[in-house]
Amino acid sequence: MQDIQQVIEERKQVYVDWLVRLCQQPSIAAQNVGMVETAELVEELLRGVGIEARRIPTSGFPVVYGAVGAGEKTLAFYNHYDVQPPEPLEEWLSDPFAAEIRDGALYARGVADNKGNIVARLAAVDAYVRARGRLPEQLKVKFIIEGEEEIGSIHLDEFAQANRDLVQADGCIWEAGYADPQGRRQIYLGAKGILYAELTARAANVDLHSSWATIVPNPAWRLLHALRSLRDAEGRVLIPGFYDRVRPLTDADRAALQRMPFDEEGYLQQLGLDAFNHHLTGLPLLEQHLFQPTCNICGLWSGYTGAGSKTVLPREAKVKLDFRLVPDQDPGEIADLLVEHLEREGFGDVEVVTMEPEHPARTPLDHPFVDLVVETSREVYGQEPVVYPTMAGTGPMYVLCQQFDIPCVSVGVGHSDSRNHAPNENILLEDFYQGILHLAAILERFPAMD
Amino acid sequence: MQDIQQVIEERKQVYVDWLVRLCQQPSIAAQNVGMVETAELVEELLRGVGIEARRIPTSGFPVVYGAVGAGEKTLAFYNHYDVQPPEPLEEWLSDPFAAEIRDGALYARGVADNKGNIVARLAAVDAYVRARGRLPEQLKVKFIIEGEEEIGSIHLDEFAQANRDLVQADGCIWEAGYADPQGRRQIYLGAKGILYAELTARAANVDLHSSWATIVPNPAWRLLHALRSLRDAEGRVLIPGFYDRVRPLTDADRAALQRMPFDEEGYLQQLGLDAFNHHLTGLPLLEQHLFQPTCNICGLWSGYTGAGSKTVLPREAKVKLDFRLVPDQDPGEIADLLVEHLEREGFGDVEVVTMEPEHPARTPLDHPFVDLVVETSREVYGQEPVVYPTMAGTGPMYVLCQQFDIPCVSVGVGHSDSRNHAPNENILLEDFYQGILHLAAILERFPAMD
Repeated sequence: MQDIQQVIEERKQVYVDWLVRLCQQPSIAAQNVGMVETAELVEELLRGVGIEARRIPTSGFPVVYGAVGAGEKTLAFYNHYDVQPPEPLEEWLSDPFAAEIRDGALYARGVADNKGNIVARLAAVDAYVRARGRLPEQLKVKFIIEGEEEIGSIHLDEFAQANRDLVQADGCIWEAGYADPQGRRQIYLGAKGILYAELTARAANVDLHSSWATIVPNPAWRLLHALRSLRDAEGRVLIPGFYDRVRPLTDADRAALQRMPFDEEGYLQQLGLDAFNHHLTGLPLLEQHLFQPTCNICGLWSGYTGAGSKTVLPREAKVKLDFRLVPDQDPGEIADLLVEHLEREGFGDVEVVTMEPEHPARTPLDHPFVDLVVETSREVYGQEPVVYPTMAGTGPMYVLCQQFDIPCVSVGVGHSDSRNHAPNENILLEDFYQGILHLAAILERFPAMD
Repeated sequence: MQDIQQVIEERKQVYVDWLVRLCQQPSIAAQNVGMVETAELVEELLRGVGIEARRIPTSGFPVVYGAVGAGEKTLAFYNHYDVQPPEPLEEWLSDPFAAEIRDGALYARGVADNKGNIVARLAAVDAYVRARGRLPEQLKVKFIIEGEEEIGSIHLDEFAQANRDLVQADGCIWEAGYADPQGRRQIYLGAKGILYAELTARAANVDLHSSWATIVPNPAWRLLHALRSLRDAEGRVLIPGFYDRVRPLTDADRAALQRMPFDEEGYLQQLGLDAFNHHLTGLPLLEQHLFQPTCNICGLWSGYTGAGSKTVLPREAKVKLDFRLVPDQDPGEIADLLVEHLEREGFGDVEVVTMEPEHPARTPLDHPFVDLVVETSREVYGQEPVVYPTMAGTGPMYVLCQQFDIPCVSVGVGHSDSRNHAPNENILLEDFYQGILHLAAILERFPAMD
């Protein structure tokens, strides 16, 4: 791999330039900002390294699809070119789309999730071909880069069903990966599912002077009571049937958790916290994090939220919730249970809009593809990676892999303070360069995988 | 009064022009927008009708003070030139500071609360003097127009204590009044007190990807639990001691409530509601509205509140509460009880900032000043007004009147759909003209009051 490493070293600035260019192009799916321009740019970047690329339309934003090589063994790279909204803007130290480099880190909305990984994968192909003249003979590499991951990959199943041949692969490298605070690389073998729901409580048809609060219902109080019916103070979801399909941990799962050197103190310090929920620690903490579903408040608002005081009785109150789901919970079923529960509890007047249903997915711990990614990681980074039986996060791994029995492993170029989905999202450039080398090593070894 | 009515009829357009000019000048105390300009304009308008006016500095925004006449009997007009913030802007049909006239109504932030009343009082002096050549010989009229009512009249007590001679009066006409849906004028003899509080819950030091919700505390859930400890689902405040000083209703209070033709159906229809809280109706409804305190959510926010979905674990959550207080609750004592309660309930980490403490106040139902205002209202409007023992709303009546034993009665030019503190605030021009005549009648009769 030293020849490839040499090329990466020589072309560092080129790869960073590609990344800066991609990060400077906003692509906020939720707000339909810059999506067409970004798809075009990604296609152009793929073509630039000799990949046959095209944009495949869906009912939503297009998928950028690329393929290179004519081998029998197909490795797919799944990524997404859309990013989360950058708000709250005032907490960014540099413009989220300036792609500013400070102290060896590149700050931009989407750089960790997931534009840094798109460019690292392109760069791996580029470096491999420049060092060796071509990709391994037995290899075919596919790029599947969608534009709707941050809004629930709403048309990816439509794409997969309509393009089953394009989706087929012998293994898939998933979109993202991070390091723990000690710098150990993390490798994920699954993803949680999700159900996103927006609840709205309404009362009078106008905002009123708050003196009416004596006798006119306040929708914010009503929403709080509805929320209280969903989850207890300990975080346990109170919707009957919610936990019915949660798969119990296996011994292999527990063993994997026990091998994970999860740096509790490091995370706590970094987050400015005294303790995790319920003072969990050790194995129970990891079980909670990776094998339990959640009901989380992503956003909450009602009435006057500006400066100073305003005495108003709001006419509506809203909450955005996400439920992270674990195998074998079904997001459609959870949506039904949520609506039924609210009705049964007397909150039938609270409007529920569910979005972004995604199934959870998992690749077996003992799959040879897992061994390949772990071994190459160990070689490139010079230390043992941490294997997560699943991510705590979500992605359409079911749609693109699990439903077609494609093994799927996720690695990427983020670090423990990458702040994806939050202000000052960033990656370290050193991680970016090493990530390129790791991907090149996977390209090299993949054809020989059992 | 026909001579005065004639003058008002002739000078309608002049009075509306004054009002439009005042409404077009924003004066948002909470945001410090346009306050100096508005104080200057109010002073200019007072001088324009022959009132000796000046701006008296306070530690906050100045009080515009004016006096006219040299009689023994002093009638004070209390008003305020500041207005509520206009948000949510998108719900206004015309710009809140355009002062647009549509179908006989003038729409502007502050026109009902309380610029329409400022101008009606000026206009009453103007019309009286033009019709009769001068004010009644025995009369002296004072204008006290502060700039901080919407932010809790925070320096009005400082003003009153430093200018006791200017504040002295034999009666005070308070700032505002409305009509019920049947058009019956309302007269108020008291005001509730208030305590405004902003509560903030915090967790991690950054917004996080919501996959962390498994093990990292969510401040929005924490805030909801703190709020739940403050108030039950029926609206009863759960802070120990909160109700201790609530004065029981007297027989006179109950009799007054029973005389009030409160149009329940009209209000419900107008507000788009099926029922008031707890399906209250009749006397218990009015008791609740006028004689009970509240704990109201004015504003609530956390995390992502934009379009579409964003999966975030917020780092903080905030709520703005107002407690409306009744005699003899003390806002300072309530603030202490609130903080102690949260600590005792284990929410000592929730930050509490209290603002705008105001005492409740009440003028006795049997005071001759009340009779005078009721009788003149009956004469001018040609129907029986509705006497409220107190407003449901708040004002510094204690500071300016009750603590100096000055009887105080509130009337004004609003109507039942004036939407004060809400989008599309408005008054009917016909109410404005009649209100001027009513004030002129009070000027005429006041010197003879027992």
